[in-house]
Amino acid sequence: MDTEKQKVGSLPTIRRLPSYLYILRQLDEAGRDVVSSTHIAERLKLEPIQVRKDLAVTGIEGKPKVGYHVPSLMKAIESFLNWDNSKEAFLVGAGNLGSALLGYQGFERHGMRIVAAFDTDQSKVGTNIHGKDVFALDKLPDLARRMHIRFGIITVPAPFAQHVADMMVTSGISAIWNFSPTNLELPDDVVVQNEDLSTGLAVLSVKASKLPGVP
Amino acid sequence: MDTEKQKVGSLPTIRRLPSYLYILRQLDEAGRDVVSSTHIAERLKLEPIQVRKDLAVTGIEGKPKVGYHVPSLMKAIESFLNWDNSKEAFLVGAGNLGSALLGYQGFERHGMRIVAAFDTDQSKVGTNIHGKDVFALDKLPDLARRMHIRFGIITVPAPFAQHVADMMVTSGISAIWNFSPTNLELPDDVVVQNEDLSTGLAVLSVKASKLPGVP
Repeated sequence: MDTEKQKVGSLPTIRRLPSYLYILRQLDEAGRDVVSSTHIAERLKLEPIQVRKDLAVTGIEGKPKVGYHVPSLMKAIESFLNWDNSKEAFLVGAGNLGSALLGYQGFERHGMRIVAAFDTDQSKVGTNIHGKDVFALDKLPDLARRMHIRFGIITVPAPFAQHVADMMVTSGISAIWNFSPTNLELPDDVVVQNEDLSTGLAVLSVKASKLPGVP
Repeated sequence: MDTEKQKVGSLPTIRRLPSYLYILRQLDEAGRDVVSSTHIAERLKLEPIQVRKDLAVTGIEGKPKVGYHVPSLMKAIESFLNWDNSKEAFLVGAGNLGSALLGYQGFERHGMRIVAAFDTDQSKVGTNIHGKDVFALDKLPDLARRMHIRFGIITVPAPFAQHVADMMVTSGISAIWNFSPTNLELPDDVVVQNEDLSTGLAVLSVKASKLPGVP
């Protein structure tokens, strides 16, 4: 567990890095070359010591009384997050959420490119959503192998998610972003990131229940 | 900080509670009345001690060698998460992501009911998405006050998110679920939950970069 942490940074740190990058990009666009950990901390409501610790995982250190060099720090975070490498992905499930993800502009700047979508619904197969072709699901294994796809995004209803994940894994996909609210059983050499909207709703709901006037 | 933790449970605990509930509901549907922390731990790849600690925040304790009473534990988690109370929400931004959320079946079982959507796009105003009416954004303040809406969901592009949030707050909304990748400036008595897809992508991307064969 500890060696893992040393290699990849702690999970909370990794989760915060995109917000640092977001602020750095704003500063960079505004022509700012240098930024202090205090400034970043204030923007994100964190302690400056936390910011310095988090940013240390990138190998970049700020200069005392001066701060961080904005362009170097941006590059270092992007490289740490592997966002400077192209990641081609297949998406399965071209429903509402799948369509939203197909149209999401933010992924490409993080190196993630959804190259095709798949569905079992014949009325969707052959269509084009936000510029991406929708194929029949049974075409996935062959296409994934031929295109050496490593990333899979699952946006199907929960009961179908395991079947889709199994299909992805046997087709050579080794990193799965799962938006279905289900726990996938996968081999140890496959990585999964679960996005469950009820997690966010849980946090909001508990926070809000402490407010006056909220039932 | 510590008193806050005692009242609401730690953030990682809250984030895990929906997965416990998910498993409990499956067991309940299968007619299982009792479950051990070890079984839950195995399903979620957690340590049993972690499961017991997390579940302790609900006030329910398992019996040694027997386990937890499934229906009581479900009720206790739902009550802790405030999911047994109705939460009426307005959603602003009826684009791809907004439409996905309007069609998401999972919210109602967590007590969240999106009662109306708002947009500035005249081609959307007056339409109906997954059974929810889309109104012009300038109708929000009056409707929110008249209907005593406390929850707001923001799915507009980042540059418009702060304006929408300000409008929500002056209309009496005190809990905001923000899907725009931007840091909102809000009064201290308003709670916010930020959902940024790049956070999940960051975690997946770092995990995957440690796999052989992934660029």
